[in-house]
Amino acid sequence: EGQTQDDCTECKRSLTVVVIGASGDLAKKKTFPALLALFDQGLLPSSLSIVGFARSKFTQSEFHAKIQPFLKGDEDVVAKFLSHVHYFSGAYNDVESFGNLAQELEVREANSSLLSAANRMFYLAIPPSIFADVIQGIDAKARAVNDGWTRLIVEKPFGRDTDSFHELNNVVAKHFNEHEIFRIDHYLGKELVQNLMILRFGNRIFEPLWNSNHVQSVTISFKEPFGVEGRAGYFDNFGIIRDVMQNHLLQILCLVGMECPASWAADDIRDEKVKVLKCIRDVDMDDVVVGQYGASADGTKKGYLEDPDVPSDSKTPTFAMAVFHIDNARWHNVPFMMKCGKALNERKAEVRIQFRHAPPPLFPGLARNELVISVQPDEAVYVKLMTKQPGLGMKLDQKELDFSYKHNFDEKTPEAYERLIYEVTRGEHSLFVRGDELDYAWQIFTPFLEKLEKVKPETYQYGERSLASADELARKNGFERSKYSSMR
Amino acid sequence: EGQTQDDCTECKRSLTVVVIGASGDLAKKKTFPALLALFDQGLLPSSLSIVGFARSKFTQSEFHAKIQPFLKGDEDVVAKFLSHVHYFSGAYNDVESFGNLAQELEVREANSSLLSAANRMFYLAIPPSIFADVIQGIDAKARAVNDGWTRLIVEKPFGRDTDSFHELNNVVAKHFNEHEIFRIDHYLGKELVQNLMILRFGNRIFEPLWNSNHVQSVTISFKEPFGVEGRAGYFDNFGIIRDVMQNHLLQILCLVGMECPASWAADDIRDEKVKVLKCIRDVDMDDVVVGQYGASADGTKKGYLEDPDVPSDSKTPTFAMAVFHIDNARWHNVPFMMKCGKALNERKAEVRIQFRHAPPPLFPGLARNELVISVQPDEAVYVKLMTKQPGLGMKLDQKELDFSYKHNFDEKTPEAYERLIYEVTRGEHSLFVRGDELDYAWQIFTPFLEKLEKVKPETYQYGERSLASADELARKNGFERSKYSSMR
Amino acid sequence: EGQTQDDCTECKRSLTVVVIGASGDLAKKKTFPALLALFDQGLLPSSLSIVGFARSKFTQSEFHAKIQPFLKGDEDVVAKFLSHVHYFSGAYNDVESFGNLAQELEVREANSSLLSAANRMFYLAIPPSIFADVIQGIDAKARAVNDGWTRLIVEKPFGRDTDSFHELNNVVAKHFNEHEIFRIDHYLGKELVQNLMILRFGNRIFEPLWNSNHVQSVTISFKEPFGVEGRAGYFDNFGIIRDVMQNHLLQILCLVGMECPASWAADDIRDEKVKVLKCIRDVDMDDVVVGQYGASADGTKKGYLEDPDVPSDSKTPTFAMAVFHIDNARWHNVPFMMKCGKALNERKAEVRIQFRHAPPPLFPGLARNELVISVQPDEAVYVKLMTKQPGLGMKLDQKELDFSYKHNFDEKTPEAYERLIYEVTRGEHSLFVRGDELDYAWQIFTPFLEKLEKVKPETYQYGERSLASADELARKNGFERSKYSSMR
Amino acid sequence: EGQTQDDCTECKRSLTVVVIGASGDLAKKKTFPALLALFDQGLLPSSLSIVGFARSKFTQSEFHAKIQPFLKGDEDVVAKFLSHVHYFSGAYNDVESFGNLAQELEVREANSSLLSAANRMFYLAIPPSIFADVIQGIDAKARAVNDGWTRLIVEKPFGRDTDSFHELNNVVAKHFNEHEIFRIDHYLGKELVQNLMILRFGNRIFEPLWNSNHVQSVTISFKEPFGVEGRAGYFDNFGIIRDVMQNHLLQILCLVGMECPASWAADDIRDEKVKVLKCIRDVDMDDVVVGQYGASADGTKKGYLEDPDVPSDSKTPTFAMAVFHIDNARWHNVPFMMKCGKALNERKAEVRIQFRHAPPPLFPGLARNELVISVQPDEAVYVKLMTKQPGLGMKLDQKELDFSYKHNFDEKTPEAYERLIYEVTRGEHSLFVRGDELDYAWQIFTPFLEKLEKVKPETYQYGERSLASADELARKNGFERSKYSSMR
Repeated sequence: EGQTQDDCTECKRSLTVVVIGASGDLAKKKTFPALLALFDQGLLPSSLSIVGFARSKFTQSEFHAKIQPFLKGDEDVVAKFLSHVHYFSGAYNDVESFGNLAQELEVREANSSLLSAANRMFYLAIPPSIFADVIQGIDAKARAVNDGWTRLIVEKPFGRDTDSFHELNNVVAKHFNEHEIFRIDHYLGKELVQNLMILRFGNRIFEPLWNSNHVQSVTISFKEPFGVEGRAGYFDNFGIIRDVMQNHLLQILCLVGMECPASWAADDIRDEKVKVLKCIRDVDMDDVVVGQYGASADGTKKGYLEDPDVPSDSKTPTFAMAVFHIDNARWHNVPFMMKCGKALNERKAEVRIQFRHAPPPLFPGLARNELVISVQPDEAVYVKLMTKQPGLGMKLDQKELDFSYKHNFDEKTPEAYERLIYEVTRGEHSLFVRGDELDYAWQIFTPFLEKLEKVKPETYQYGERSLASADELARKNGFERSKYSSMR
Repeated sequence: EGQTQDDCTECKRSLTVVVIGASGDLAKKKTFPALLALFDQGLLPSSLSIVGFARSKFTQSEFHAKIQPFLKGDEDVVAKFLSHVHYFSGAYNDVESFGNLAQELEVREANSSLLSAANRMFYLAIPPSIFADVIQGIDAKARAVNDGWTRLIVEKPFGRDTDSFHELNNVVAKHFNEHEIFRIDHYLGKELVQNLMILRFGNRIFEPLWNSNHVQSVTISFKEPFGVEGRAGYFDNFGIIRDVMQNHLLQILCLVGMECPASWAADDIRDEKVKVLKCIRDVDMDDVVVGQYGASADGTKKGYLEDPDVPSDSKTPTFAMAVFHIDNARWHNVPFMMKCGKALNERKAEVRIQFRHAPPPLFPGLARNELVISVQPDEAVYVKLMTKQPGLGMKLDQKELDFSYKHNFDEKTPEAYERLIYEVTRGEHSLFVRGDELDYAWQIFTPFLEKLEKVKPETYQYGERSLASADELARKNGFERSKYSSMR
Repeated sequence: EGQTQDDCTECKRSLTVVVIGASGDLAKKKTFPALLALFDQGLLPSSLSIVGFARSKFTQSEFHAKIQPFLKGDEDVVAKFLSHVHYFSGAYNDVESFGNLAQELEVREANSSLLSAANRMFYLAIPPSIFADVIQGIDAKARAVNDGWTRLIVEKPFGRDTDSFHELNNVVAKHFNEHEIFRIDHYLGKELVQNLMILRFGNRIFEPLWNSNHVQSVTISFKEPFGVEGRAGYFDNFGIIRDVMQNHLLQILCLVGMECPASWAADDIRDEKVKVLKCIRDVDMDDVVVGQYGASADGTKKGYLEDPDVPSDSKTPTFAMAVFHIDNARWHNVPFMMKCGKALNERKAEVRIQFRHAPPPLFPGLARNELVISVQPDEAVYVKLMTKQPGLGMKLDQKELDFSYKHNFDEKTPEAYERLIYEVTRGEHSLFVRGDELDYAWQIFTPFLEKLEKVKPETYQYGERSLASADELARKNGFERSKYSSMR
Repeated sequence: EGQTQDDCTECKRSLTVVVIGASGDLAKKKTFPALLALFDQGLLPSSLSIVGFARSKFTQSEFHAKIQPFLKGDEDVVAKFLSHVHYFSGAYNDVESFGNLAQELEVREANSSLLSAANRMFYLAIPPSIFADVIQGIDAKARAVNDGWTRLIVEKPFGRDTDSFHELNNVVAKHFNEHEIFRIDHYLGKELVQNLMILRFGNRIFEPLWNSNHVQSVTISFKEPFGVEGRAGYFDNFGIIRDVMQNHLLQILCLVGMECPASWAADDIRDEKVKVLKCIRDVDMDDVVVGQYGASADGTKKGYLEDPDVPSDSKTPTFAMAVFHIDNARWHNVPFMMKCGKALNERKAEVRIQFRHAPPPLFPGLARNELVISVQPDEAVYVKLMTKQPGLGMKLDQKELDFSYKHNFDEKTPEAYERLIYEVTRGEHSLFVRGDELDYAWQIFTPFLEKLEKVKPETYQYGERSLASADELARKNGFERSKYSSMR
């Protein structure tokens, strides 16, 4: 437990973080701020060098000016941080660029007064189309020298289907070992996703309930109150299922569904996630609902097809719900419903475990218990249960056993990216996606994504709560809305 | 469920409540205020007559003056209430007193314009020594006439041991049927004690945990921050075990330990409580700790033996802890620890279910989960569980999933007596103790009470938290205090 | 356990057994042979007197001649037995008859050299129409004197419905206490019915499976290969449901379904049986199939309606199947199917517990496990399970873990009546039906028996295995026939 | 399942089986007879060639004469079989030998009229000291050409400890892929070991009992009624723990203890076995008993130390018992006792799962249920349970629900080696030990084997049932011998 940053060999080494695609949105909005936060907490080695790598020709101060608006916090700290940030202009598809980069790094590493070994972390904030060149370039020219390690951080999309994933992955695998690769699914960096394993296996009281004898259904949902504004070009090629369900929600499903691993070792955990994926049954198309948002009721928001970057006959779903089954003893007959959508009524990400009814004879028809793990907007865990209303007579009500983070903890919850980059510095893989996980994930999704290509999605109003057909699918799978109105 | 007061036959009848022992403490502090509260809520029939019966010669207004200080609330309401309150002076051991009382009642009943049947409820707020006479008197002369019912409310003590209980009970049984008798254990009227059955059987999530596979121990405790002030004479004859453990705590034990009844019918519930009692193993004297409070550390509070009404060699315990075992499949090897004491550090009554450790391999040594049902001072239900502390790394903490009544409900929680008298008007026995329950209860307690007569209790300081030997007994039975300090 | 016959007070007393209706079939075929068997094993007191009581005027030796054909075994033993058998001719409806009988008994009892108290057991082998007179007669005149006990053995039918049961029972209850009454359901005397509680509660391995998580259905069936030959008059008034299902099969259902009692005490066991009955849901008429046998395929056996004692428009069922539900946590959603019929293909009585399928992923579609408890024709317990066929490759087969009584025990299995009468001598009520059991049983059966009065049964061929509609009803309730043909 | 031999591509290829070490005991007694049996059943391709490879110079007929005594069965079949058996004399440490062998094979393969691809299976019936040379030779010169596969069968010992295992395994891994390697533990080829997964996962009734809530202990035992006669030289270097417990018994432990795999795929099964090994706690030396046999009581059998090939101060155990703990949720607190010995009273290999006592209140002290899976001498599965003895009264007895293979199946049970070689022809790895299994196995055993080097074993008499200290260790771990004497 409680691994700490006291393995001194490591912190005495110099570290270079190369952010490839440094001028892109991801780098500016997530990578550099996360690096700043770690720097501020003293969690990065003192001999630190951060290199922005991109095509444009910038001076260092021009580059600083580009990223500074995203670096919040104490001015002195930001200034100190920027003193570690360099810029390197290179061509992604030119091996020599990486050779030149390496020379520059070596000079800086040599100047460091620390142990000879210097570590290098490459953060690939670039689109997949240029992955192959960059990876080849790094491997050929820019790997760490001496005993330093080289680590590669990559981001989704990891392909569009099984074939494109394999193509991409083969490139990575040809140049890097699995232990050098850190595939980010930033949902794995979220506080409550992390907490799932603690809740399940660090407590006595959940596991006995965590199976088909007691659980009626599991719903994993993700809602956004805005459309594809500005990202339509990218999005239309992927759709909500590839964008959210096949990765973020599926990762949560694995953590909810998996057996207890043999240990905390990253591969023990990921073995269990893979075991869940292996047991997922082919999705039945009757168990899928897809939607595409139209204009909002008041007309102020435009529909998806009205976006200039979206083809007018696009069948790309912006809402999807699908029912999955894990065919093993624990989850036999328990539907896992994944649901995600853009342009809905609220921002929300949560896991909702709905339990079976209390058995007869005393209270057979009461509202069901639920355990809700809320990831967004607020982190919370609560249990909905039936209780007696105070007073004479025997009126029942459904209330919540509540555990709110805000109320219980003073500590701030770190950003997912902050946590994930920190884990890379430690070489800890638990929060990253292994190659075979993605392979099995694509095996599950590819067949029904292909079938969906011919399906025209239902239109829903921008800002709606859900689709009626999705509600109906949930109902058919045994989900019951509580009649107690005050309930979340 | 949710029985309501709409069975009109009943409310159209007149009701007479005779409070025998009307000038005593119990009557003034509990019975009349509870009747007032019911009256105020419109839960008593409109044709209502309340009769205080005692030896003293009072006029009605003298009697009103005696009880008025205890009647809180709106002045008009109290005035209206008092207009229904009469006084009757009679001798407990004179059958003719009851004949005279009956004549008076009949006159008033006859004047009522309601249905002919008039019900009578006799509340015996008197010491057991005069029970026999009063019961005989009522039966002989003062039973309801026509089709009205006669109901008898009796209070503990129900004897000191098996023999004295039988003696007392035989008197009652000779004159009244079981369905006419309502034996009060006022703990059964408490909100959370009531709620126990709802929590267990109206929710899916508790019963699967409610057994020896998961529960390590159950502790039922009662603490008072004051000594026997003013009640020493009575108390010394009974001691804390008879005063609290054998009734209040044992009733709670039955509700925690029982199987789900076949229905809500009072006898189905009480059958299950009796089944628990039948399975309780003889108490081992090594599993008992008794104590007697001495003076407080600062000397401001006197010790038990210093009380003028206590014999200087008294062995009466003011603190007791004992470990019980329910020998059935559900509770095999789970210690039920009952603990109660006067002159301790706080006022508290609660059930604490401590669960077994989370199993290996991930977190074998963590703090245990607990489910705490707090009856006093505040009503609350909370679950202690392990969770991840927000932040980088993996620090764990124990926090509470909390359900506080104050926070969740606006309704006031009614007083136990209010609820109980209301149930008597409805003829509902669930919250009253059946004769065979007491019989089995005494069979469990009599043997070890007899052995304790020769045991000199340990002395503890007035105001202490507990006795070291009680803590040690709990520890030997597997109870672990959480190392997380902020915990209740 | 293992109660033995060594409580000497009892065996030193004299015992008189009065068989009322001594010349009837039941007395001759069951009662006297059972008494002989007990006598032969030395299980009756040495000072024994057996009195046949009936209307006809027989001499003792004429009576001996009537019953002797039914008394099998060693000639000397039979002769000795008969030396204890007397005959008394009396009128059932004449109180004086009982007075005279009593005088005779007292003379014999007085001659006994044993302890003064002399016990009397009255075995009522008579139709219910004369119950009232006989019971009144015994109570008025023939009860045991001194400290001897008087016990009454009665046989079904205990009424035709709730009303007639109450009428009958009120007569009994008016004259005898519940502890003096022994109502026989001879199925409770059968070896394997007895064994059910041992199997369930004396072993660790059955109870964890004994609930709705694992059991798919329970089938309790009774088949006879012959029709109503000779009993048509009686039978047509009752039908197969009253004759077999409402008593024998329902008793077995209770023993299969009940919770573990608090102890072996008869009332603890019977409390649990009553608790099962209380939880049985009203039977849905869609869950009932009734049949009436027609002629056999080869014409050698006549149909039910062709019986001269059967009205030609009789709607009395000779076959019935009905599905029951026990609405509690253990049995929620598990159908209990009771099935009984005459003129079927074989003699059989058994309980068949069919388990749910093994869960995925490895063998989801295999044949189901079954636990079969065979009561007739042979006593056996067996478990059907899937196993690998020896050999290369992985072919599966269903085989039996078998426990045959014949193979395992040398001891003969006593006849049900032998056991039951023996239990009466010991005053042990566990194997007898308490009044409230019958009350609840009739509450379950009366409503649907009334509805059935208007239902014309399906006709089935004499000698068939079952009715197609019964098979279909079983299938709809999830019952699956094994595809492994060699299976019982 | 039920995989059959109908994938025709494979059977149309020619197959060459090269038995390296063809003149040794293993080859003669196990390998060739198993090949004959498969040949006899038509389970080997028609274009078959079997090559004995050894150092000695034999003609083919001389070699036939050496192996013929071990080839039982129909003379014609044996003759036909031998027509496929060739002999090749070569030096194990001479690469050219393998080159020459390859030339010979290619000629024969070329003559085959079948598909061009020709498969080669190398069975290494040789001591580990020459493994490296042979493996290198095969890899360098004798691998299958074209598209044929090359498979390698190796036999224990797989090292003496972690280091020697790694050394050996590195050699293999350098030259062969894991999917080409088939490590034999012949216990995995035994019928009932195979059946274990079917019993557990193909039936509903075992898994709910298969955990620490119900299982008290698991005992896996192996007994031989003879000493090291003739094998002392080999044995003294290894001892009974390395010879039997670390492989055969540990494999059984894994199959008994493992979770249900995601599928029948060999790697899914082996992943689960590895997961068990990862959770095994370090063995406490207080949980180990070792013994060495002395002479038999009658002096006819000599003690271990009297064997001329055994050093007189040898500390090598010929008997061992050790208690293991699998630290996971399923098996928390359940001791797994492995016990093996030579020169004991009988030949026996079995798994004995002893269940906890039936819980109170009815039968708390009865004998425990057991599920016994007997591998040797006879294959059987039986459940020991408590049942009522037929007869009046309530005497209990422990009897067996029995499933004997002999009684249930006509098919002969194939020899382990036959099955295993057959599986190699099919490329099916489930019954073979993966490299990481051995790695974890050695990590468990190496530390306590090292400690045992300094421990002098207790002496026991040749022919004894067990050691008193082993019985005591079992008792301390909660094992109870049944008091019912007739029990196996």
